[in-house]
Amino acid sequence: MKYISLLGATGSIGTQTLDIINEHPTEFQLVAMSVGQNIERARKIITQFQPELVSVANKEDAEELRQEFPKMNFSFGHEGLVEVATYPKATTLVNAVIGSVGLFPTLEAIKAKKTICIANKETLVTAGHLVMDAARKNNVAFLPVDSEHSAIFQALQGEKVKNIEKLIITASGGSFRDKTRAELNNVTVSEALNHPNWSMGAKITIDSATMMNKGLEVIEAHWLFNIPYEKIDVLLHKESIIHSMVEFHDSSVIAQLGTPDMRVPIQYALTYPDRIPLKTAAKLNLAEIGQLHFQKMDLERYRCLRFAIEAGKVGGTMPTVLNAANEIAVQAFLDGKITFLEIEDLIEKALEAHSSVKNPDLDIIQGVDLETRAVVRSLIS
Amino acid sequence: MKYISLLGATGSIGTQTLDIINEHPTEFQLVAMSVGQNIERARKIITQFQPELVSVANKEDAEELRQEFPKMNFSFGHEGLVEVATYPKATTLVNAVIGSVGLFPTLEAIKAKKTICIANKETLVTAGHLVMDAARKNNVAFLPVDSEHSAIFQALQGEKVKNIEKLIITASGGSFRDKTRAELNNVTVSEALNHPNWSMGAKITIDSATMMNKGLEVIEAHWLFNIPYEKIDVLLHKESIIHSMVEFHDSSVIAQLGTPDMRVPIQYALTYPDRIPLKTAAKLNLAEIGQLHFQKMDLERYRCLRFAIEAGKVGGTMPTVLNAANEIAVQAFLDGKITFLEIEDLIEKALEAHSSVKNPDLDIIQGVDLETRAVVRSLIS
Repeated sequence: MKYISLLGATGSIGTQTLDIINEHPTEFQLVAMSVGQNIERARKIITQFQPELVSVANKEDAEELRQEFPKMNFSFGHEGLVEVATYPKATTLVNAVIGSVGLFPTLEAIKAKKTICIANKETLVTAGHLVMDAARKNNVAFLPVDSEHSAIFQALQGEKVKNIEKLIITASGGSFRDKTRAELNNVTVSEALNHPNWSMGAKITIDSATMMNKGLEVIEAHWLFNIPYEKIDVLLHKESIIHSMVEFHDSSVIAQLGTPDMRVPIQYALTYPDRIPLKTAAKLNLAEIGQLHFQKMDLERYRCLRFAIEAGKVGGTMPTVLNAANEIAVQAFLDGKITFLEIEDLIEKALEAHSSVKNPDLDIIQGVDLETRAVVRSLIS
Repeated sequence: MKYISLLGATGSIGTQTLDIINEHPTEFQLVAMSVGQNIERARKIITQFQPELVSVANKEDAEELRQEFPKMNFSFGHEGLVEVATYPKATTLVNAVIGSVGLFPTLEAIKAKKTICIANKETLVTAGHLVMDAARKNNVAFLPVDSEHSAIFQALQGEKVKNIEKLIITASGGSFRDKTRAELNNVTVSEALNHPNWSMGAKITIDSATMMNKGLEVIEAHWLFNIPYEKIDVLLHKESIIHSMVEFHDSSVIAQLGTPDMRVPIQYALTYPDRIPLKTAAKLNLAEIGQLHFQKMDLERYRCLRFAIEAGKVGGTMPTVLNAANEIAVQAFLDGKITFLEIEDLIEKALEAHSSVKNPDLDIIQGVDLETRAVVRSLIS
C-alpha cells in the first residue's frame, strides 16, 4: 500500500489522481490532500476517500469543514500546503497545484524524504536548480507526471543519460494551431479554452494555446533530465499520440505513445518502477487512427516558446520572471482584461525589464516572483 | 574489445556488421567468419579485417585460399560453420546466415557460452524451443538483430515481461503492398526484389513481398520474448519508421523509431546494454517525413502471414515445415521455376500434408526439415 498526499485535489490532475487511487484501493490510499476554494467538491472527496488531513485555502472554510467532519484534521493557507506535503504517514506526494505556489511545499516534502510526483511544472521552472539539488541531496525520487516528461522518463528506462543525443518534446499546437498570427488578434477566451486533444485546467489550456506550456516543459525537461537546452527539440504533432521521444547517439529513437489520457502518466509515477493494469484507459489503435502528422516548430509563430527557451538559457532568475509574468498575464486574459496576444507582450516586457541574478536562493526567487507579478499587474491596469 | 565471429559475412547483414566493426576499431575485432561461395568478396574481407579463421562452403575454395593466405586458418562446410561459431577467442557470435543451416552452429555456440546476436530468424522458427532452452540453461545472452525484434528488445529495457499486454510488430508491406491479389498473378522476380524501404538479400526481400517474413518474425518474437501468439499483433506501417512497439497493461506503448538502417540494430546487439555513437547513420527527422501511416493487416491478402501464425500456434514440427517449404519455394521462384503465388500454394500443401510432432528433438527437426524440402521439390518439378 502506498500512502499518498495530494496537493491540488480538485484540479484536473488532482481529480484524475483520485480516479487512479479509487481504481486501485489495494494499492493506494489518500492520507492527506489540499484543495483551494472548491469546498463543495472537497466535501465529496472527503466523504469518499476519508483522508486524515485536509488543507483548504481559507481559515473560514477550514473551520466550517472541521465542524462537519469532527474526526478529521483540517488546516489552511500556505502552512496547510506544507502540512499536507510533509504529512508523516504519506510516502508519496503528488503535487498538482497550479503556479509557483507549489515550490515551497515541494522543497519541504523533499526534506521529509517523500517520493515526489510532480505535475506542478512551475516549481521546476521557477527554481529547478534548488529543487533538483535538494532531491539529489536527500536521495529522493523525483518523478514526472506531465505526459511529455513521463514519456521521456519511460523512454529512458534501462538507458544511460550519457547516450542521449536529444530529447524531442511533442506539441499538439493547442487550440489555435491552425490560425495565423493575424487571426490571433480577435480570439476569445472560450475559443482558447477549447483544446483539440487534452481536457485540462484553464491555465494550462491557455498556456497550450500560447505555446508557453511547451516552453515551460522545455525548462522542466532541462532540470528533470539534466540536459542542456541545445539538446531539447520541440516537434509539432497534432494528434498527441507520440507523447515525446529520446534520440540516442546511435540514432535510435525511443518514444512513448498512447491515447491522450493523463491517468496513464499519473499512474506510472505512482507505480514506478513497476506498472499495473489501467483497465479503464482506451487502448491505442494506430490502424484506426491511420495517420500521425509531424511539423517543424515555428518560433516566430509561437513567441512564448522562444521566450521560454531564451529565458531558460539565460538561467538564474529569468525563468522565474517568465513564469510569474505568464501567470499574471494568463489570469488577466481569462478575466477578460487583456487580449490573447497581449499575453505575449506582457511577458516580453517583463523579461526585457529584468536583469537575471545568477544562482538565486529561495528568498531571491520569491522576491523576484512577487516583484514581477506587481510589475505585470501595473502594466495591465 | 569485443572479439566477434560472424556467420554469413558476405550477405546483407554480414556486410553491415563488417561496416560496424570497421567504424569502431577500438571496440570490435573480427576473429572468425564464414562465407558461402563468394570467394572474391571473401578475399577482400580477409585482406581488410585479417580474421584468424575463415570458413567457406566448399573444400576446394578453402584449399585455394589457404595457399593465398598461408598465415590464416581455413575450414569448410557444416563443420566449418561450427568452428567459426565456437571459435575460442570470440566472445560474441553474429549469426547472419540465411536459412535453417544456422541452427546447429547456433546451438553449439550457446554451449560454448558465446553471446548470440541472431539475424538468422529461421533458427528460431524451426527450433525455437531447443534454442531458447539451451540459452537459458547456459545463461547466454540471446540478442535480436532483426530491426523489429531489436525495437521490441529496446522498448523492453527497464520493463517487466509480466506487464506486457501486446507486442506490435510493424510491417512495411513489402514490394507488392499496393497490389491486389489479382495483380499478384503476373509479377516478376525483379519486381519482387524491389523493396520500398529496406535494402536486403534476395530471400528476405521475397519473404517481405509474400509477408512470410513477418510471419517468421511473429514466430521469432514468440520465442525471443516468451509471449503467446495471442499477444502478438502485426500492423501495416508503410514508412518503416516505427520499427515495432510494446503495449503494456497500463495502456502505455513504448516504440523504437529510426530511419531504415540495419546497422543500428546490429550495433545495438553488439554494444548492448550500452550504446555507442553511430555517426554515419542518418538521424530521424519526423518533421521532414511529415506523416506516418498505419493500417490493419489483412490475413486474407497475406496468406503466408496467416500460415505462419497458424503453424506457430500448432507448434511442434509445424513451423519447421513452414520454414523448409518456404525456403524451397522462394528459391524456386527466384530460379524462375514457379510463379509468385505458387510460393503460397506450395507452403499450404506442405503444411496440410504434415502431422505435427510435439516437442521434437534436433534429430526429428532435421528429419522433418529434409523431408519437407524433398516433398516440396517433388511438387515443383
